[in-house]
Amino acid sequence: MRGGIDLGGTKIQAVVVDDAGRVEGEQRLPTPTVGGPQDVAEAMAGALRAAARAAGLDSAELEGVGVGSPGIVDSRRGIVTSARNLPNWEGSVPLGDALADALATRVRIENDVTVATDAEFNLGAGRPYRSILGVFWGTGVGGGIILKGKRWLGRGGAGEIGHMVVRIGGARCPCGRRGCVEAYAGRKALEERARRRVEKGEKTELFKIMEKRGRDRLTSGVWGRALEHDDKLAHKLLDQAVEALGAGVASALNVLDVDAVIIGGGLGLRLGEPYARRIEEAIMPHLFASDDPPPVHLAELGDLGGAIGASLLIRPGRAARAQTPVAG
Amino acid sequence: MRGGIDLGGTKIQAVVVDDAGRVEGEQRLPTPTVGGPQDVAEAMAGALRAAARAAGLDSAELEGVGVGSPGIVDSRRGIVTSARNLPNWEGSVPLGDALADALATRVRIENDVTVATDAEFNLGAGRPYRSILGVFWGTGVGGGIILKGKRWLGRGGAGEIGHMVVRIGGARCPCGRRGCVEAYAGRKALEERARRRVEKGEKTELFKIMEKRGRDRLTSGVWGRALEHDDKLAHKLLDQAVEALGAGVASALNVLDVDAVIIGGGLGLRLGEPYARRIEEAIMPHLFASDDPPPVHLAELGDLGGAIGASLLIRPGRAARAQTPVAG
Repeated sequence: MRGGIDLGGTKIQAVVVDDAGRVEGEQRLPTPTVGGPQDVAEAMAGALRAAARAAGLDSAELEGVGVGSPGIVDSRRGIVTSARNLPNWEGSVPLGDALADALATRVRIENDVTVATDAEFNLGAGRPYRSILGVFWGTGVGGGIILKGKRWLGRGGAGEIGHMVVRIGGARCPCGRRGCVEAYAGRKALEERARRRVEKGEKTELFKIMEKRGRDRLTSGVWGRALEHDDKLAHKLLDQAVEALGAGVASALNVLDVDAVIIGGGLGLRLGEPYARRIEEAIMPHLFASDDPPPVHLAELGDLGGAIGASLLIRPGRAARAQTPVAG
Repeated sequence: MRGGIDLGGTKIQAVVVDDAGRVEGEQRLPTPTVGGPQDVAEAMAGALRAAARAAGLDSAELEGVGVGSPGIVDSRRGIVTSARNLPNWEGSVPLGDALADALATRVRIENDVTVATDAEFNLGAGRPYRSILGVFWGTGVGGGIILKGKRWLGRGGAGEIGHMVVRIGGARCPCGRRGCVEAYAGRKALEERARRRVEKGEKTELFKIMEKRGRDRLTSGVWGRALEHDDKLAHKLLDQAVEALGAGVASALNVLDVDAVIIGGGLGLRLGEPYARRIEEAIMPHLFASDDPPPVHLAELGDLGGAIGASLLIRPGRAARAQTPVAG
């Protein structure tokens, strides 16, 4: 049995899985919004211990625990840097050592998008394919690439499809640049766009739904509910998001020409199949190989995908399609 | 000794090279603009025979002849389809068989961009690197990708960086889509843009230079000369081309994160080092890994690169870094 933790800006999801990738125990906790890395590490350890208990184990009995983390991950040393969505995460944090101490087992950390892409490739919607592009549509827009069965990481920074330029001189992105996909499609950018529209006098239910749900930001759930209420601004902003995602994913496909696209991430999963179809349609006008468009699938592992993917970082006993190798 | 032919819309370049890639003979002829595939094949055979003669050989004495061709290339069967810049090239043309008969040696055909990328990787500016993006800025904008020493072709259509979207709803591209890099940067699109500006009353030397040189289109040489004359419209349109190339190449780098970019193609080579530096600068505002930008080099093999690359399609005796393998 192996553990997996998906560390997100909003939630910590922990799972314990068997060698076939079946979930035997799980626990979800909110990510601490105050404190610092130590508090985050403690919450992560707590979630994993609870998941292990649900599987009838102590964490020390696990073969190990894999972690998918935002920020820049030094996998070899277990260090996470610049995780801008986590509280007071300044400089380099030795998260691997902290967790290994707390859980009394070995810990391996990788980038969250890499881990989620591996999970869909090995156990989810990517299984039929050899080369995929994973598109994680959430707070930001991340991309994971697997080419002929191997992760493609480039010099370490590949897959940034959220920062492909779809409109030169266009909207300001949370990254500081202009006209990126994420500037139109990321949850964070969408919230900023919605706030500016409201300041200019546009009407929307978005912030009322947020307050009613006791949230302090426009979560994926808030966007989903606003669509159900047929909120005009939510529709308009998400239409622009789909347009930007379509152009960006098409551009990525024009370069990579992979077998399939898998859509995941908080917003992607919440908006689900109808939006996966809309993104597929938005790709078409820009796709060079339009005679033979690669299929677009929704991520199959859903909310647990990141944590299950993280568990794959621990080399399993004899899983069929084990740890995804890195190209080269 | 091996032969190589670069088949372009404007010229046919033939070379004969030794196993180390040294050019022992070469010949350049204009591509027939009337007639059909048979005339093109005859001109190609003529150019190659002249190059062989210059090397003191008969074409039948060559180990074989490689061809870089535009259009869709079925390499296994030697068939070229949809080569839209060649005269009356309708349907599928068995170019390989026609040339093998005419030259009395074996012939292997590949896509021209693939071949030129291989050449720069093996013998040119790409030698120090394992993963490169080749950008061929000419009539269109093509891209060739080598990842960890292997060609990346995807499902057969990878590398179309000319059709990455840099402005949603932007300028019409010769491919029929909108806002592609090529719509701003390709020589064909640039000429259309220049003609429209002239129709609207803008002044330019471009068409006068074209006529003085006895050309019927704005060749790379015409653009280069217009810049030397400080032609305002030429500067303006090429500024927009550089902006689009910068955004497109940056987007490709954000996805691929390769070690280096090599700029070639008719316009790229004619405008040379100053424009390679301008493209490098235009990449920066959009590059996610802006702390560590990959170097941008001008193609080293120059005008002969395509033909030398084509010669590499014939497996050499014992060249150091022989035929570039395909990923997978």
